[in-house]
Amino acid sequence: MTQLIEYEDSSDEVRAVYDDIRATRKTDEINNFWKALANHPPTLQRTWQTVREVMTIPGEIDPLMRELIYIAVSVTNGCEYCIASHTSAAYAKGMSDNMFGELMAIVATANTTNRLANGYQIPVDEQFKT
Amino acid sequence: MTQLIEYEDSSDEVRAVYDDIRATRKTDEINNFWKALANHPPTLQRTWQTVREVMTIPGEIDPLMRELIYIAVSVTNGCEYCIASHTSAAYAKGMSDNMFGELMAIVATANTTNRLANGYQIPVDEQFKT
Amino acid sequence: MTQLIEYEDSSDEVRAVYDDIRATRKTDEINNFWKALANHPPTLQRTWQTVREVMTIPGEIDPLMRELIYIAVSVTNGCEYCIASHTSAAYAKGMSDNMFGELMAIVATANTTNRLANGYQIPVDEQFKT
Amino acid sequence: MTQLIEYEDSSDEVRAVYDDIRATRKTDEINNFWKALANHPPTLQRTWQTVREVMTIPGEIDPLMRELIYIAVSVTNGCEYCIASHTSAAYAKGMSDNMFGELMAIVATANTTNRLANGYQIPVDEQFKT
Amino acid sequence: MTQLIEYEDSSDEVRAVYDDIRATRKTDEINNFWKALANHPPTLQRTWQTVREVMTIPGEIDPLMRELIYIAVSVTNGCEYCIASHTSAAYAKGMSDNMFGELMAIVATANTTNRLANGYQIPVDEQFKT
Amino acid sequence: MTQLIEYEDSSDEVRAVYDDIRATRKTDEINNFWKALANHPPTLQRTWQTVREVMTIPGEIDPLMRELIYIAVSVTNGCEYCIASHTSAAYAKGMSDNMFGELMAIVATANTTNRLANGYQIPVDEQFKT
Repeated sequence: MTQLIEYEDSSDEVRAVYDDIRATRKTDEINNFWKALANHPPTLQRTWQTVREVMTIPGEIDPLMRELIYIAVSVTNGCEYCIASHTSAAYAKGMSDNMFGELMAIVATANTTNRLANGYQIPVDEQFKT
Repeated sequence: MTQLIEYEDSSDEVRAVYDDIRATRKTDEINNFWKALANHPPTLQRTWQTVREVMTIPGEIDPLMRELIYIAVSVTNGCEYCIASHTSAAYAKGMSDNMFGELMAIVATANTTNRLANGYQIPVDEQFKT
Repeated sequence: MTQLIEYEDSSDEVRAVYDDIRATRKTDEINNFWKALANHPPTLQRTWQTVREVMTIPGEIDPLMRELIYIAVSVTNGCEYCIASHTSAAYAKGMSDNMFGELMAIVATANTTNRLANGYQIPVDEQFKT
Repeated sequence: MTQLIEYEDSSDEVRAVYDDIRATRKTDEINNFWKALANHPPTLQRTWQTVREVMTIPGEIDPLMRELIYIAVSVTNGCEYCIASHTSAAYAKGMSDNMFGELMAIVATANTTNRLANGYQIPVDEQFKT
Repeated sequence: MTQLIEYEDSSDEVRAVYDDIRATRKTDEINNFWKALANHPPTLQRTWQTVREVMTIPGEIDPLMRELIYIAVSVTNGCEYCIASHTSAAYAKGMSDNMFGELMAIVATANTTNRLANGYQIPVDEQFKT
Repeated sequence: MTQLIEYEDSSDEVRAVYDDIRATRKTDEINNFWKALANHPPTLQRTWQTVREVMTIPGEIDPLMRELIYIAVSVTNGCEYCIASHTSAAYAKGMSDNMFGELMAIVATANTTNRLANGYQIPVDEQFKT
């Protein structure tokens, strides 16, 4: 189990990232993920910068849909921590129980057809190559 | 390599599914995935019924976003066939190159943080458990 | 691409394994998998010994079912080489097209329910813990 | 953590599935998997229908072997819930401890050779392509 | 949950492996992994022999780096037990916290670029094929 | 198949990254991975910055070992492109054929024990939790 580094115990380098997390998310709460990464400041900085850019900079995919995509990946990989944290984030951004059900149905179906495509060794159609 | 069963050579049972695929998708084209599954009619029927329901019945997630989620899973699993076919489907439903880029960035980031959460053995925060 | 080491070009150490493969499988054919592993003789020896023991020593699971299990894993992992070689082996041991279809249906279903169990964060029932 | 929907609290739609699960399995017990899926009735119905068909309709693969294949997939994916529930189901259908040991050996070996085939970038033999 | 077979309760066959583990590792401690595998002695013997050869026979990759590679695989697969045990082993062999941080950064980055390569369907450069 | 953006056709934004790749790697060659990511400049920039930092900034893990770890992840995930490109990079940095063989043996073994730990549902030893 990794040591979790609290705000009070953080170095200046780590605290700067924590402050940006707090400002970006408009909450004092720092979740365990960042407290664990703080054991290696370059990884903390790089990962937070990436997550912030990818999840919060305005773009063509809206913030809630980004969370759904994040959940889809995390469920496929079976990452318990990420499923819990991003499901929580998605509910906070307006996901309904029904939308979560639809999401799970898509993820389940894609995991099924991925294996059928593998198992039947299906060649890619010419129309999909262009 | 699996034998691909063409429309002309299909049994009544398979042809009924092919006809429904054509009607639902408004095209005569049947892609290789279904032609391969036709070797086992119960799997063809069940899989098509599931895909049709999950991907086309109106719900809270719009059709383009469903394709993005499908791609996210397929990319995470590394399923070449499904990546090619659903990327093609997403473009047909209006995905822009930029949106695809955003999608890839989210998928890449989630795959990164999934492993960091695993590796640092991070306990799930109490706030994410309710 | 790895160099494939042919029987004629093999060292004594590698040739001893090749001879055992030929004797065990009752064919002169050595497939590419072993010709590639021959680049690292300890891996060739260890892997062949394991595969021979696990797949051919008489036990409670019959040889054809062992191949089906091997395919199930390979399809889940998306290993093209292993899917092709073990599907071929299964047909040689008596798998019918219909049995392959049933196998794919089970693999597809398990991949679906694995993700639903992940996504819904379902606690293991007490009855399954004993 | 998903809310688990008990039989007593279920809607007519959900209860109909629960009743079919009870009748098919000849037990009043409904395990947590279904109680979680009940949060999204279409997913509950579709998943139960698929599992029932794939796991219980008579076919060429016997019921115990179907469970072994299910376990092989679940172990490869690392799905804790599915490993626990299907291992329990397999024991109920007559799996011996020794058979479980043989199964694990095959799953372990396939996971090994899948990676060796990937890593050595081994081309598929012509004989496996037909 | 598997029964763990203690040294005192082990058969001669299992005890011989336990003794070799103790001698090789210079400790009386047998960790749960081996106590679980002891339920199927052939798997215990084969797995221990493989782990001992692969992890302890002198070679070109030093013992600590072997542990880092082991962790990289285990983190990618999300195997909680193996992450915990091999992280512990790596610290015992001299891994620093900073080295662990560097390792996690590489694992995270590889998991990211693996998916970008999949998603963008990037053809392998000619220069990488020779 | 993604369009590959050549140096000559690149925007200023993309070209700045290409120039940094060339300078860092001391070669004019830009491999397909970057030419594909160039379709989404923010992903190109972020990914290159991460790869450069993680793989080239001096640290406690030497450059060749970083490549071995990269290969271990890519082989576990089955990413053909990344296996080919990083195996090539590792040979360029001094990997011997024998070292590659040792690496494959470790990756194969870890993939085996990961599944045995999953399948036997082995509880983490107390000694590994601190």
